[in-house]
Amino acid sequence: MRILLASLLAATAPLPALAQPAVSGSHDQLIATLRTDALNDEQAWRITEDLTTEVGQRLAGTEAEARARAWAVRRLSALGFANVRVDEFAMPVWQRGREAAELLGPYPQKFAVAALGNSASTPAGGVSGEVIAFADVDALRAAPAAQVRGKIVYIGHDMPRAQDGSGYGIFGAPRRQGPSIASQKGALAIVIRSIGTDREHRNPHTGVMNFTEGATPIPAGALSNPDADQLERIFARGQRPSLRLTLESQVTQGRSGNVIADVPGRDPRAAPVLVSCHLDSWDLGTGALDDAAGCGIVTAAAKRIMAAGTPARPIRVVWFGAEEVGLFGGLDYRARYGKQPHHAIMESDFGADRVWKVDSRLGKEREAEAKRLQRMLQPLGIVPGSLTETEGSDIGPMVADGLPGASLQQDGTRYFDIHHTPDDTLAMVDKKQMQQNVAAWTTALAVLAGPVQPQPTRPARRRPR
Amino acid sequence: MRILLASLLAATAPLPALAQPAVSGSHDQLIATLRTDALNDEQAWRITEDLTTEVGQRLAGTEAEARARAWAVRRLSALGFANVRVDEFAMPVWQRGREAAELLGPYPQKFAVAALGNSASTPAGGVSGEVIAFADVDALRAAPAAQVRGKIVYIGHDMPRAQDGSGYGIFGAPRRQGPSIASQKGALAIVIRSIGTDREHRNPHTGVMNFTEGATPIPAGALSNPDADQLERIFARGQRPSLRLTLESQVTQGRSGNVIADVPGRDPRAAPVLVSCHLDSWDLGTGALDDAAGCGIVTAAAKRIMAAGTPARPIRVVWFGAEEVGLFGGLDYRARYGKQPHHAIMESDFGADRVWKVDSRLGKEREAEAKRLQRMLQPLGIVPGSLTETEGSDIGPMVADGLPGASLQQDGTRYFDIHHTPDDTLAMVDKKQMQQNVAAWTTALAVLAGPVQPQPTRPARRRPR
Repeated sequence: MRILLASLLAATAPLPALAQPAVSGSHDQLIATLRTDALNDEQAWRITEDLTTEVGQRLAGTEAEARARAWAVRRLSALGFANVRVDEFAMPVWQRGREAAELLGPYPQKFAVAALGNSASTPAGGVSGEVIAFADVDALRAAPAAQVRGKIVYIGHDMPRAQDGSGYGIFGAPRRQGPSIASQKGALAIVIRSIGTDREHRNPHTGVMNFTEGATPIPAGALSNPDADQLERIFARGQRPSLRLTLESQVTQGRSGNVIADVPGRDPRAAPVLVSCHLDSWDLGTGALDDAAGCGIVTAAAKRIMAAGTPARPIRVVWFGAEEVGLFGGLDYRARYGKQPHHAIMESDFGADRVWKVDSRLGKEREAEAKRLQRMLQPLGIVPGSLTETEGSDIGPMVADGLPGASLQQDGTRYFDIHHTPDDTLAMVDKKQMQQNVAAWTTALAVLAGPVQPQPTRPARRRPR
Repeated sequence: MRILLASLLAATAPLPALAQPAVSGSHDQLIATLRTDALNDEQAWRITEDLTTEVGQRLAGTEAEARARAWAVRRLSALGFANVRVDEFAMPVWQRGREAAELLGPYPQKFAVAALGNSASTPAGGVSGEVIAFADVDALRAAPAAQVRGKIVYIGHDMPRAQDGSGYGIFGAPRRQGPSIASQKGALAIVIRSIGTDREHRNPHTGVMNFTEGATPIPAGALSNPDADQLERIFARGQRPSLRLTLESQVTQGRSGNVIADVPGRDPRAAPVLVSCHLDSWDLGTGALDDAAGCGIVTAAAKRIMAAGTPARPIRVVWFGAEEVGLFGGLDYRARYGKQPHHAIMESDFGADRVWKVDSRLGKEREAEAKRLQRMLQPLGIVPGSLTETEGSDIGPMVADGLPGASLQQDGTRYFDIHHTPDDTLAMVDKKQMQQNVAAWTTALAVLAGPVQPQPTRPARRRPR
């Protein structure tokens, strides 16, 4: 609905009287060149490959994420960014141990399972109990506690693939609310159908959840979709299956941090354009789509602007820490800098498939800038979206605070096939689509931080003979 | 090459003088009806779904395979087959325990690994060592032992997808020969690139291997293809990675068995047509494609013949035990019955994708029968193949002995994406293609065991009032 409305407005609104800076004509040409060149970008892929290979999994707060930060500082410095620095912060660290889900009866077999972040740990031998199945969270909510007490709750759902990824919000309730509700009704543990759209591969989908006030933490895991289908087939046979569930985990204290780097602008007092991603990943895959690719894309775009000259405003590149487990990095940034003016805040955290729409919320007085952004992105096949909405994960709280921003919306059709599963590795990144992303972000930066003043061509140095 | 030659022969050979039985015309019509009806078959799917759901994984020689045998006896009896029986035999049973592959340096991270069947067990804490990489088995063979001693050998390969699945034979050497060669050169352990064609999902591919005489068993596992790519990327960076490999396993003695059922023929002394599949599966998935589907297909076809009437010759349906771990079931059958005449032996053990070619080896004197088989299958889009070659897994030794047989060759393009991995579950079975298989097998049985004499239509029984 939002999409339709936005398209309608774009189609019927009169062309705005443009208030372009004097250099606009030539700057439009520069943007066109930057946009085209970025379609052959290699930098984003290189960052994605190198980070996922040379660090691998990088769970927030662990030594792996610390290695990733050190790696990021080295890489951003080597690329020529200014003021590369780390803002550290403390955080609780949940880590998984042994995991298994064995059907004890009526048909003994093993299921593929992964604990959800912040799951309580089972004892070493697991917990065993009868499974009680619910089609969705509402069905669990409606069940009398007496029916649930002492049992292992299973919750299904029917999340479809969707271009805008909206299913994740709608169908994520089993993970976000299911464990607390099950706990409050006295359940022994809970396993949910993975909040993912791959129905063929046995890749369980993890993700964070938090028990609500007053809900005792219980073990909480996700079955892969084929295993959830299998369990539902067993229920469809009128059986009352029992399960042994082993989900060991531990919680410690650790440190994370945001890695920040700058592209200086011509006016050092100007509010920066913040472009961001998150450095941490879940621990099952190497977080190539979530979110090494995002770091690759925004960094490659900023590097392209830097290589082309000096923008009017500074660009601030932030690789947030500890996004997956509770937006710790975004909240730390907000606490430190959230009251300072930002020209725009943006984040790439939805894989590497093509950008299909641009939304923004720059304010009524900056409508010309927002429409120029739409126009400059159109040659990439990016449709104009909302002028009053924007979003982002780590930047979400600052978006809620009212900071201006823009969203380059990516095609999420296959994102939840992969997201938070062991299959989120480099093998899933489509380089051509990633390059379109780099072109979109380069364009957006050139519009929002521009005009870019090209570097004076250095006279060719004569070689001493 | 074999395919081209066969096509050429089929195109240029004169039409044979047919020596059809008297009922041929009407039998051809009956076959056409059987073939068309079978395209809507539900039985094969039902067997596949029920076996994989109600038993699940069924590793040879385990209690799970014994449950599968009991299930098979019940199902085949319920379907109305005659003389449902089990031929039991003893066998060694290898079972996997805990498995992990952790890169210790230079980039600590976890890989997805599965032990190969008959791998030696590591101690509980695993074994650790430097990894030495070889592009293929020949490169390992050429390496001096001093270079390999005390290290963990890695072997790659570059198996492509192929319609006839031929890559599995050609590229399977790392699994079949690699462990023995590595052991003989003093390697601590071996990990190979999975002998599979899925390059995107982290589904390690298991399978049996045997150490040659004089080679001390060492731990042997397979990395998923994305993990093998990752390891190769690390080598490409000039690193010398070290790995901790945990592959626990145990060997015990157990029992397996072949489940056999008959469709009686009009001539009880006639040699039977044997149609077969295997009941056991690997332990990672539920063996839907390998080979519950094969059992579903051949059983549904035999059931269709039985429902249509009485064939001239008996049909013997065999669900072999313990195929995966060394063709134990096929060898037991051969020892018991391999000297008895068989009109034809056939096996379905290559998933459930469409049959695209028929090969046979019925002997020169039965060429008319072989060509009739080709002709009757053509309406299903099945091309005529060899008249002098046939194959099969459990039946392979009897094929080698010279028994007559036919092969309904399935499209294997995606088979090795799934085969022997955790992803071999019902979710991978394409029902439409499976129905084409049932139509092909029903047709083949009608030709080879026919003519089928329709049951006299029973007069409608009057209900007592």
